[in-house]
Amino acid sequence: MTSSPSTTRMANAIRALAMDAVQKANSGHPGMPMGMADIAVALWSRHLRHNPANTRWINRDRFVLSNGHGSMLQYALLHLTGYDLSMDEIRNFRQLHSKTPGHPEYEITPGVETSTGPLGQGLTNAVGMALAEKLLAAHFNKPGFDIVDHYTYVFTGDGCLMEGISHEACSLAGTLGLSKLIVLYDDNGISIDGKVDGWFTDDTPKRFEAYNWNVIRDVNGHDVEAVDAAIVAAQQAGKPTLICCKTVIGKGAPNMQGSDKVHGAALGDKEVAATREALGWTEAPFEIPADVYAAWDARESGAGFEGEWNKLFAAYTEKYPQEAAELKRRMAGDLPANFDATVSAYIASCIEKKETIATRKASQNAIQALAQVLPEFLGGSADLTGSNLTNWKESIPVRSNQPGNHINYGVREFGMAAAMNGITLHGGFIPFGATFLTFSDYSRNALRMAALMKIRTLFVFTHDSIGLGEDGPTHQSVEHISSLRLIPNLDNWRPCDTVESAVAWAESVRRKNGPSTLIFSRQNLPFMERSQQAVADIARGGYVLRDAEHPKAVLIATGSEVELAMKSADALAAEGIAVRVVSMPCTDVFDRQDASYKAGVLPRGVPRVAIEAGVTDFWYKYVGLEGAVIGIDSFGESAPAGVLFKHFGFTVERVTAAVKTVLA
Amino acid sequence: MTSSPSTTRMANAIRALAMDAVQKANSGHPGMPMGMADIAVALWSRHLRHNPANTRWINRDRFVLSNGHGSMLQYALLHLTGYDLSMDEIRNFRQLHSKTPGHPEYEITPGVETSTGPLGQGLTNAVGMALAEKLLAAHFNKPGFDIVDHYTYVFTGDGCLMEGISHEACSLAGTLGLSKLIVLYDDNGISIDGKVDGWFTDDTPKRFEAYNWNVIRDVNGHDVEAVDAAIVAAQQAGKPTLICCKTVIGKGAPNMQGSDKVHGAALGDKEVAATREALGWTEAPFEIPADVYAAWDARESGAGFEGEWNKLFAAYTEKYPQEAAELKRRMAGDLPANFDATVSAYIASCIEKKETIATRKASQNAIQALAQVLPEFLGGSADLTGSNLTNWKESIPVRSNQPGNHINYGVREFGMAAAMNGITLHGGFIPFGATFLTFSDYSRNALRMAALMKIRTLFVFTHDSIGLGEDGPTHQSVEHISSLRLIPNLDNWRPCDTVESAVAWAESVRRKNGPSTLIFSRQNLPFMERSQQAVADIARGGYVLRDAEHPKAVLIATGSEVELAMKSADALAAEGIAVRVVSMPCTDVFDRQDASYKAGVLPRGVPRVAIEAGVTDFWYKYVGLEGAVIGIDSFGESAPAGVLFKHFGFTVERVTAAVKTVLA
Repeated sequence: MTSSPSTTRMANAIRALAMDAVQKANSGHPGMPMGMADIAVALWSRHLRHNPANTRWINRDRFVLSNGHGSMLQYALLHLTGYDLSMDEIRNFRQLHSKTPGHPEYEITPGVETSTGPLGQGLTNAVGMALAEKLLAAHFNKPGFDIVDHYTYVFTGDGCLMEGISHEACSLAGTLGLSKLIVLYDDNGISIDGKVDGWFTDDTPKRFEAYNWNVIRDVNGHDVEAVDAAIVAAQQAGKPTLICCKTVIGKGAPNMQGSDKVHGAALGDKEVAATREALGWTEAPFEIPADVYAAWDARESGAGFEGEWNKLFAAYTEKYPQEAAELKRRMAGDLPANFDATVSAYIASCIEKKETIATRKASQNAIQALAQVLPEFLGGSADLTGSNLTNWKESIPVRSNQPGNHINYGVREFGMAAAMNGITLHGGFIPFGATFLTFSDYSRNALRMAALMKIRTLFVFTHDSIGLGEDGPTHQSVEHISSLRLIPNLDNWRPCDTVESAVAWAESVRRKNGPSTLIFSRQNLPFMERSQQAVADIARGGYVLRDAEHPKAVLIATGSEVELAMKSADALAAEGIAVRVVSMPCTDVFDRQDASYKAGVLPRGVPRVAIEAGVTDFWYKYVGLEGAVIGIDSFGESAPAGVLFKHFGFTVERVTAAVKTVLA
Repeated sequence: MTSSPSTTRMANAIRALAMDAVQKANSGHPGMPMGMADIAVALWSRHLRHNPANTRWINRDRFVLSNGHGSMLQYALLHLTGYDLSMDEIRNFRQLHSKTPGHPEYEITPGVETSTGPLGQGLTNAVGMALAEKLLAAHFNKPGFDIVDHYTYVFTGDGCLMEGISHEACSLAGTLGLSKLIVLYDDNGISIDGKVDGWFTDDTPKRFEAYNWNVIRDVNGHDVEAVDAAIVAAQQAGKPTLICCKTVIGKGAPNMQGSDKVHGAALGDKEVAATREALGWTEAPFEIPADVYAAWDARESGAGFEGEWNKLFAAYTEKYPQEAAELKRRMAGDLPANFDATVSAYIASCIEKKETIATRKASQNAIQALAQVLPEFLGGSADLTGSNLTNWKESIPVRSNQPGNHINYGVREFGMAAAMNGITLHGGFIPFGATFLTFSDYSRNALRMAALMKIRTLFVFTHDSIGLGEDGPTHQSVEHISSLRLIPNLDNWRPCDTVESAVAWAESVRRKNGPSTLIFSRQNLPFMERSQQAVADIARGGYVLRDAEHPKAVLIATGSEVELAMKSADALAAEGIAVRVVSMPCTDVFDRQDASYKAGVLPRGVPRVAIEAGVTDFWYKYVGLEGAVIGIDSFGESAPAGVLFKHFGFTVERVTAAVKTVLA
């Protein structure tokens, strides 16, 4: 047996893999992996409880690389510790269809807990993960059975900490007392533009103390023992912890370390060779000595960690069989057996009641009904609970000392959205959080990340148009619904009444492989009578709500404009012009239907007029150059809602005139 | 003469107007104006140097109501101090076409310096204003002539301080030492969801000290003398100052003050009456006693402030006539006389050079050329200067102790965008700032605000598609270009070569009444040969780049896909299929052209195929149901750019096949 290699050699293995992979790709970021390599040794070889053989082990510690451009650090760690990530994949860094893309991607690389790169969001995902752990533990743990009991570790750099979202997330983490969140800050003083002291002079430790975090200052990030000790202290702190590690970016590259030159480009063959020499690393590229592999190998310890937990969980299952089954169901993301029946019964009750209410209220009613069978519902609002109506009768606000199921996220739209992604990624919950639709702008990139990761985060947006009224154009969405529809893999529901609202909720919850937005009105909308077939077809995203024999034209509308379409159809019928009305609550789902269904709803050759209280551009894909769109291609105005709908021409007169024009 | 009324009576006039206007509209936010009324007395009657008769006075103090939902506070102040805002307008609060919309709107209400409401952005605009003042002063002031010398005051609440953008903005303000920025924090402990201690427990003073701000703690916000003294101290601090004012929200409403009930709804007739009694306010709604008007009236003092400055400026003009004329020109937002000639000469040089370079490099060359005649250029990048290429040979980085003309904004995309809006609003500069196009998501609502305010802020976005390559889908825009086009009044340029890049810059700079985005490639794009007419028509947003006799089809393309369209046209011509190629660098501008120009470019009845490396939905408005769009309706991948363009089907084969399909 060779003796165990030094921690320096373990770190140098990371440095070598990172610089060699970046050099081979001639693309990537060697500086961060080389600078954080020693920190990685401390965390991954001494603390992280994970099992390379099972990336789905419920109680694994979560690790998030928030400074995702340093992806080679994570790939090196996953490879070295024994995940299913071969050296060939490392060699194929940043190549098409490799498991080693430019930034870490969830579900592409085993062991990557979240996709990172857009700065600040990984850290915020981690806040969500730590919150999920805390709430899940409170729900499932029993005396002697800490079934859910793990840490969430984050690597972060200056970039993440400059981003505004880091304020939202870390302020919230402090308020909620997420004591098992441990953040290792790579304080290297360098960002892409150079030495940060020209643009980033925060006293970061003081800032985090202001958030009620435990802050461990001035740790030498190249001293494994010091980092190790800091992590031990953090685990006991009773607060979220920021460990400030002073590091040298690109550590080991003798002529370039400590400068922005190593941040985002290959070192070059010459400096790679010089680094080898400086580090005393004699192996060829992509070769790791057996003793280093052995020192990193976490398969045995991982099997041990999980095995121990499996025993505990077996005993728990014996004593609390129902809870054990529930935890497994929830972590698998499966819905309860009575979900479909609950939905059906609730939809039937909507049909029976025929209520004229705001769809935001219809949404709350749907939440109320579904929450009865979905203990995994974890609602919330960015300080608009009474407007968004995301709470329900039995919901309990989450506080530092009070586990619950509704989160007052504060005025933190982006933080809410990215934290929800972290909650989803952790598992055990279906999070939904709300703000006004206009402020989807603030959180937009987190919606995109949910769509990219194909995860079930539900984004509720109320006050969806000029129907918001007096708050005026800063608060009135006009372009938002269409612009959300442009994000790939994001389903966007804008229902017109109680029944469509119920279906929107049910379908969003059923959609395991992607996020949805649920877009609701401030103002009352009437109940629509519809056939059983029409009720069933709502789930197809678009359907015939009102038909006519040999329709001359098709009116397509969504949400609050469906009523106008129906009234216009009546008016046209009175003039002898038969039109069909198509309600299109979710264009994304409609677009995925087979061609024959779509042609059945929108028959070829019948002219179309679309109506939506928003920008018109998007709708030409349905109405074509020969059709018409009634919308708003300017910003809104401040006035009562009814006044505005008239002002912007949402009238039967205008719709009927448009129909006549397309018929002419 | 009646004796001067107490400051309490002055404050109560605000309270009465706010509660009565909200009550009449039955909509609005009385709590903030009632809570901040005393602070407003201290600032507006004792410090603010403004002239109600001239809202364009260059050296006025700037006032920003960042918590814009309290708009009635600002309207009351503008009315009482003598701006052109009548009591009828106050009565018409939140009604269509009034000058008193739900949230303060720039150019709608005289004296409103920026539109606010989307939280955190007003504060960030103010950071931009204070920065503009500092840089302008450094450029124009001379010994004995502090021509530019004013404060920027901000009212802010908990909401703004929870928002992430407040971190970005205030961190930057501290780093840049914006000592004439004074923020009055309405620390009332209440947000819409209730008492903030469930979701906002920051030690805010400590947080701002961490930003290197001067913090004045524990000021009684209902003690005018205390607030006054704090402002005096702030003016001398040599750092940006946060004055923490403890207040009672809805102060004066005896049964509702101090609770979230007064935040966002009318008090009700009963509580309004009770408030009148509690305040001893006996006037009818919308009536203000003469002595209170007299105490508030700022017309005389304002004329005095401006008159004094006018004298100074006259003397300055005598001594420094050129500088005086330049300052006036720049504050008016006019371009220098030699601008057009400079643009023409630069375009001619591009045509002569025929360079194949990345359009981000072409952009930098254009900046280099225009900067020679535009001292008002104020560039910047969110920590991607070397990638965005927003700096130029003579540009000087802005530092705390170094005025310059290129700002390292740090990794603060949203903060950069909203600060740039503040710079534009202040006047004297044409700011531009850059990040990768994907991260336009982070700043999106600030782009919207620029569009809503109709101001000339230039947003540069590079790395505009899968051409970004190895960084992968988190960094590759697919939906962004189209989604930016949906924002009303935002012009979006995506040029295909050096000449189009030059025109894009020139047209964006010329566009005084609205913002533009300038979207550039990472990778090299070839120079396009074009006729003189085509060169002239670039400024029309879309034009015929390559024509054919009796074209069978039109290929429409933008940016990096124009080359593919041209090659495809060649291939089709070789097969005897004549097609026209339309380059469409700015659909927004093209849409504003007259119908005959548009029909000339896109003749009716000739089928169309659009090509853009992004989502396809948007393009159906040009190609219709019978046309085709070649784009990407999924997320990107991590791989070298060339590999990706092939992978996603941007090939001559696919384009020619699509043309044949639409011809079939």
